[in-house]
Amino acid sequence: MQVQVIENVLKLNDEVARMNRADLQNAGVYAIDLLGGPGCGKTTLVEKTCAALADSVDIAVIVGDLATQRDADRIARFCRQVVQVNTGKGCHLEAHQVRQALSRINLRDVDLLIIENVGNLVCPVGFDLGQNAKVGMFSTTEGADKPAKYPYLVLAAEILLLNKIDLLPHVPFDTPQFYADIRHLNPTVPVLECSAHTGTLEPWTRWLRQRLPAHVA
Amino acid sequence: MQVQVIENVLKLNDEVARMNRADLQNAGVYAIDLLGGPGCGKTTLVEKTCAALADSVDIAVIVGDLATQRDADRIARFCRQVVQVNTGKGCHLEAHQVRQALSRINLRDVDLLIIENVGNLVCPVGFDLGQNAKVGMFSTTEGADKPAKYPYLVLAAEILLLNKIDLLPHVPFDTPQFYADIRHLNPTVPVLECSAHTGTLEPWTRWLRQRLPAHVA
Repeated sequence: MQVQVIENVLKLNDEVARMNRADLQNAGVYAIDLLGGPGCGKTTLVEKTCAALADSVDIAVIVGDLATQRDADRIARFCRQVVQVNTGKGCHLEAHQVRQALSRINLRDVDLLIIENVGNLVCPVGFDLGQNAKVGMFSTTEGADKPAKYPYLVLAAEILLLNKIDLLPHVPFDTPQFYADIRHLNPTVPVLECSAHTGTLEPWTRWLRQRLPAHVA
Repeated sequence: MQVQVIENVLKLNDEVARMNRADLQNAGVYAIDLLGGPGCGKTTLVEKTCAALADSVDIAVIVGDLATQRDADRIARFCRQVVQVNTGKGCHLEAHQVRQALSRINLRDVDLLIIENVGNLVCPVGFDLGQNAKVGMFSTTEGADKPAKYPYLVLAAEILLLNKIDLLPHVPFDTPQFYADIRHLNPTVPVLECSAHTGTLEPWTRWLRQRLPAHVA
């Protein structure tokens, strides 16, 4: 019975995700779901991405956390439309939470929607939110073994980021192992290195711009 | 119905956890459940703790990961009894998985059991495994806002560790905010700073020894 209930939850989630996807597509919005462990740098990446694209791209952000409004407050300095979703004890965002958040965003004024998921490398992978792409984020300080230990994210991601490359001189990180493990699981996924903290974002912002309509990016 | 199923899962888990706890107590084993995000340094802490206590304490380790045998292989260099549990898509260990692992450990030869949970700051908090203490682990590279954003771990932990203090000079980390947020949630939980990587473990290993029978520690 437990499996049946989980299947029903996922089926319902997929239905709501389809509605989100249709609404986003109709409004011409490209949407990413940003996944990574706690403290890998998701919020800083969102801040710096908003700042880097602000000249030409209208961005909205939905940010998930168990508790606090802090991430939304941080991001609001760089983005006009930010909605915080508090999940309580929930370890991931679900499509209905995104749907509720979308009702508070004027999608007609948006080119790019960034959904920052709860810090967790496991369960967010399994829940479709209606996004165009799941973006998986690792960081050098977490160690090079995370792709192998969290394989479902590597399999599901449209693109992977390796953040905090500025800290490479200070941490043990086996770069060849990191890439070999990813390639073993997913031979084609692009992997981009960045440092959100220092603002080294170039390949990432270029990747994003390429996904936006020509008149925007 | 969904809530009912979740309640049943937790109730069954608690029953099995009670059986684990009775077995551990009967065998004179002190057990900790180590919780922290991916890459906060749990496995390195376990390795170095085993090495530091090896002179006088018999240790067994149960280590949870979605996939791979890597952590068990690492820890086996410092500890004779190590069992890896692969959770597949499961984001936390449950009591029945620990029970199965315990059947492969000779508890009569063990003083201290370390259970390294799946890297996740959310769901492992809610599942009793039969441990004496849940140990919550943060790291400086994750940023100082993690206690406030993952409050249930702070509320449930017997003790909190702040790892990677050797990296403080290289990362933005608001130490007063970190402690203020913890104290706001849990005024009494001990918080110990350490660096598993450099082997700076002293207050932590002392805390552990104090929990072991006098003839051992």
